Amino acid sequence: MPLIETLAGRGARRVPCWMMRQAGRYLPEYRAVRADIPDFLCFCYTPDATVEAALQPIRRFGFDAAILFSDILVVPDALGQSVRFIEGVGPVLEPLADDRAIARLDPARLEAHLAPVYASVSRLRAALPPEVALIGFAGAPWTLAHYMIEGRGGSDGGRIRAWAYRAPESLARLIGLLADAVAGYLIRQIDCGADAVQLFDSWAGGLAEPLFRTHVIEATRRIVVQIRDRYPQTPVIGFPRGGGVLYRDFAEETGVTAVSLDTAVPLAWAAETLQPRLCVQGNLDNHLLLAGGAALPAAVLSILDRFAAGRHIFNLGHGILPETPPEHVAAVVESVRGWSRR
Amino acid sequence: MPLIETLAGRGARRVPCWMMRQAGRYLPEYRAVRADIPDFLCFCYTPDATVEAALQPIRRFGFDAAILFSDILVVPDALGQSVRFIEGVGPVLEPLADDRAIARLDPARLEAHLAPVYASVSRLRAALPPEVALIGFAGAPWTLAHYMIEGRGGSDGGRIRAWAYRAPESLARLIGLLADAVAGYLIRQIDCGADAVQLFDSWAGGLAEPLFRTHVIEATRRIVVQIRDRYPQTPVIGFPRGGGVLYRDFAEETGVTAVSLDTAVPLAWAAETLQPRLCVQGNLDNHLLLAGGAALPAAVLSILDRFAAGRHIFNLGHGILPETPPEHVAAVVESVRGWSRR
Repeated sequence: MPLIETLAGRGARRVPCWMMRQAGRYLPEYRAVRADIPDFLCFCYTPDATVEAALQPIRRFGFDAAILFSDILVVPDALGQSVRFIEGVGPVLEPLADDRAIARLDPARLEAHLAPVYASVSRLRAALPPEVALIGFAGAPWTLAHYMIEGRGGSDGGRIRAWAYRAPESLARLIGLLADAVAGYLIRQIDCGADAVQLFDSWAGGLAEPLFRTHVIEATRRIVVQIRDRYPQTPVIGFPRGGGVLYRDFAEETGVTAVSLDTAVPLAWAAETLQPRLCVQGNLDNHLLLAGGAALPAAVLSILDRFAAGRHIFNLGHGILPETPPEHVAAVVESVRGWSRR
Repeated sequence: MPLIETLAGRGARRVPCWMMRQAGRYLPEYRAVRADIPDFLCFCYTPDATVEAALQPIRRFGFDAAILFSDILVVPDALGQSVRFIEGVGPVLEPLADDRAIARLDPARLEAHLAPVYASVSRLRAALPPEVALIGFAGAPWTLAHYMIEGRGGSDGGRIRAWAYRAPESLARLIGLLADAVAGYLIRQIDCGADAVQLFDSWAGGLAEPLFRTHVIEATRRIVVQIRDRYPQTPVIGFPRGGGVLYRDFAEETGVTAVSLDTAVPLAWAAETLQPRLCVQGNLDNHLLLAGGAALPAAVLSILDRFAAGRHIFNLGHGILPETPPEHVAAVVESVRGWSRR
């Protein structure tokens, strides 16, 4: 598996390539299987559907990794918080109101509730070619807590920041509960066949440094320690999106095997500061992938060239946008393969 | 003027202090004057109202600087694009659709349309105590273009990024037009008595490096060069919010006198990387200012201590939130003054 060889630092034969949200709405074959199960959470809990969705981009593009098809909000859902996906709006949760709401979250529900996810992982691993790695994933605690307290993504995070500053022990309890739940969830995915796992911290950007240190870096380390204890060799990829300068501290202090770089991380800085320490993944602009044109292959080459001296997994800086033409994805995969053959 | 002394590197007697959005809805006296002129753009074009609004926080807290009360969207409005402010929604613009829409923007309208702003600057300067600096401001080209193309703030910037990648010369034309308009606008504010100017690039975060270099760094440099040509001594403060690692390149390459740091910029990194080169301003979390409690004075002290070795203007990382208790602002000003007296 080129992806796992690269993560392990064993020098892969080529730069492995996959893309965040490589399975999804930009693919007509995905829209076809989704049409049968319009409710998105229901889709996530139907192994036949998720396995098919995860395999589609492997068949079409020959990526080096498949990623479990699921959503980070299955964890709050499994803990007992109401989660709905509304077409055109995105996920909507009944926001946590207070400590009593935190106390009602029930980690004992996780194993039974998430059984369909574990079934998806097992079946997907069995269905994948042996050289294609299977990546399991979860939302990181800060990002899960953001959704759970704000009730949605993309807000200014006013409620969770107020909670962090006014009741720090209470928020720490929630983050700790989520870290342990996520660690257990990822370990079970590895039990079922995941070859690596990725932690998505989509709302880590813009945080004041003390909050980032506590709720992003420390919380991630708590998860990594638990995974390592059980699976010392399984790579863990961290994605503290928007982390800016603190990508450096995240890379140094969490124990992750790799960091996934968001679109804004400058290549030269990452090559000098991060890559000597761990594997980097990224970071083509998903808006450029959508737009296409001559700038697209040029950007692909500049990423590959800049990270050529160390461990690198080719990916985007953020997920594939729904309007993206699949041919643009094919062209990028071809560029990466062509570069690797040079 | 302590603010100007600090910006000029002459060693002020104390750390100067002001806060972004120090005039605004969190103050009951502001809500009272706003009640008379509910239309926000109309308020911005009424010098009696804006001068009163800008003076209110000076009277109440004794800040070292007043900032012109206005909005960055007066520039698109003056160029002829429709701008409306909708209560509870924010600014809404008729989005630019194509090159013809860019061609219809008319810089010849600026001087007459913005005359009330220049009147505000003159009267405000005359009304301020001599030791209080007057800061003029404008939106930076990328952020103005974001509003003008997306039609609002806070979107994912999909339209402007598509434009940047699909028609780079066309976007460059718009950014250039805005840079020249903004340079002229700031020069006129200095003509009328502004002692320093700040460029707000609120949507500079998350940009791929090549876009940041072209549309944030280059565009800012183009403005700074024009201001310096006319007013070599007037300080220019840049605020590339969310710039992350690229704050370094922004500080090195634009020619600004100071950078305003967003909430996420780590203090130690800024003290090592930015402050030896220029003055830094910032960067208390506006959500902590809102929340208050024991963490607030501790955070104020940690910012003051960390930047004690060089040029520093105390400020927030983002504007004061409308729900902020004015007593929290007073307590922070008191902490800054107390630290300066030590």
